Amino acid sequence: MVFKIGGNVVEDEAALRQFCRDFAALEGPKVLIHGGGVMASGMQRALGQEPVKIEGRRVTDAETLKVVTMVYAGWCNKHVTALLQAAGCHAIGLAGCDGSVITARRRPPRTLLDGQTVVDYGYVGDVTPASVNVSLLESLAGLGLVPVLCAINHDGEGNLLNTNADTVASSVAAALGASLVCCFEYDGVLRDRRDPGSVIPLIRAADFAQMCAAGIIADGMIPKIENCLAALRAGAAACFIRNAASPGAGGTQICL
Amino acid sequence: MVFKIGGNVVEDEAALRQFCRDFAALEGPKVLIHGGGVMASGMQRALGQEPVKIEGRRVTDAETLKVVTMVYAGWCNKHVTALLQAAGCHAIGLAGCDGSVITARRRPPRTLLDGQTVVDYGYVGDVTPASVNVSLLESLAGLGLVPVLCAINHDGEGNLLNTNADTVASSVAAALGASLVCCFEYDGVLRDRRDPGSVIPLIRAADFAQMCAAGIIADGMIPKIENCLAALRAGAAACFIRNAASPGAGGTQICL
Repeated sequence: MVFKIGGNVVEDEAALRQFCRDFAALEGPKVLIHGGGVMASGMQRALGQEPVKIEGRRVTDAETLKVVTMVYAGWCNKHVTALLQAAGCHAIGLAGCDGSVITARRRPPRTLLDGQTVVDYGYVGDVTPASVNVSLLESLAGLGLVPVLCAINHDGEGNLLNTNADTVASSVAAALGASLVCCFEYDGVLRDRRDPGSVIPLIRAADFAQMCAAGIIADGMIPKIENCLAALRAGAAACFIRNAASPGAGGTQICL
Repeated sequence: MVFKIGGNVVEDEAALRQFCRDFAALEGPKVLIHGGGVMASGMQRALGQEPVKIEGRRVTDAETLKVVTMVYAGWCNKHVTALLQAAGCHAIGLAGCDGSVITARRRPPRTLLDGQTVVDYGYVGDVTPASVNVSLLESLAGLGLVPVLCAINHDGEGNLLNTNADTVASSVAAALGASLVCCFEYDGVLRDRRDPGSVIPLIRAADFAQMCAAGIIADGMIPKIENCLAALRAGAAACFIRNAASPGAGGTQICL
């Protein structure tokens, strides 16, 4: 089972501690992927840098790379790992360079949706299921270790690259043929965003476009579900979107 | 073989890249421990914190702990690991919480050398050879991995602790019964600090006090040699102080 938690969990100390206890109690081999983007933006501002995001992705120059590596691979990764160890989960925090567990490709300059502007995102990388060192993850699991991955990966040529934690999670789940559980602050995908009880238990790929067109699924939920569908198409066993307060059950299942 | 590099190497990009190539070329199982204190102090100042050190140790409140964890376990550890991977060394960067590879004890408030002032260093921990998870290090070596350790460790109760990289290195060497190579910017312990060629090839414990009294060994070299002697007394196979530009040979051997 591959779990993903975002910045909303990582940066809420009470929610994070509860999640770590719940995650530690889940049986079977597991992997955790975490974000931390809000803290990274805060650290950039504290250092006098203005975060720049284009189409949702952080433009990552050399100074920004240092900050995101410090925040994701440093504080967030080690804080989560120490909490998991204290909760009885034999966690090992890793960036992609560690044992070369994930190798990313630097993203070439890209033309934006307007069809005209070309953006060089800098030290930003893309990962795919083929990026994942499955044999190392299996060896670590064989030692009883639970990998805790941040979204800092490397290119194998000495460069660290900032990647997208959701894509890392879907790639790892697909590469392992595992189930993916994306955790966030709601109980699942809601039919009515004002009603926290209106969780849709199952969304099929065929329903997805229709639900987007009807405005039932919108904004940040669209890329989350697209990411789940990509994981399923690439080999993930199953995908769920769940509340981080209940990682083991419930929520919305995404199916092909 | 256990190697230690300090901030002078980690923070000098050309020296670090050369060291990584040389380290990667060394045969046999090995472990690297690195510092990064100058960068940590710089980051503290950039964030408006004034570094406070008492008797050479950084007073580490909650904010300082975040900074040192970000710098040591984040940027320094991942940058070194990515460089080693690129050089063909199958490195895995770890903090003490990772697989609980090193467990530290929080240092209780301590009376200073003046006999009066009591200092609480905050999130500062002490490590001993018994802190080291030898079985995990051996398992990782069995997978062909080369551990790269920073000096951020944990207490097993969810807290990260800032520890001394030299003590981590001597504790790991002693626990493994390995040789310890402390690398720095000189060719070894010099008889005359103005003459870089005056390397003393061998220093025995019995000579050490005498050489300190004669002023031949002074300042920062005293704790380095004391740390080597502590490693030998606790079980390290041999100890060397060498130039980071020549980690595989030469320098000063320290003996009991």
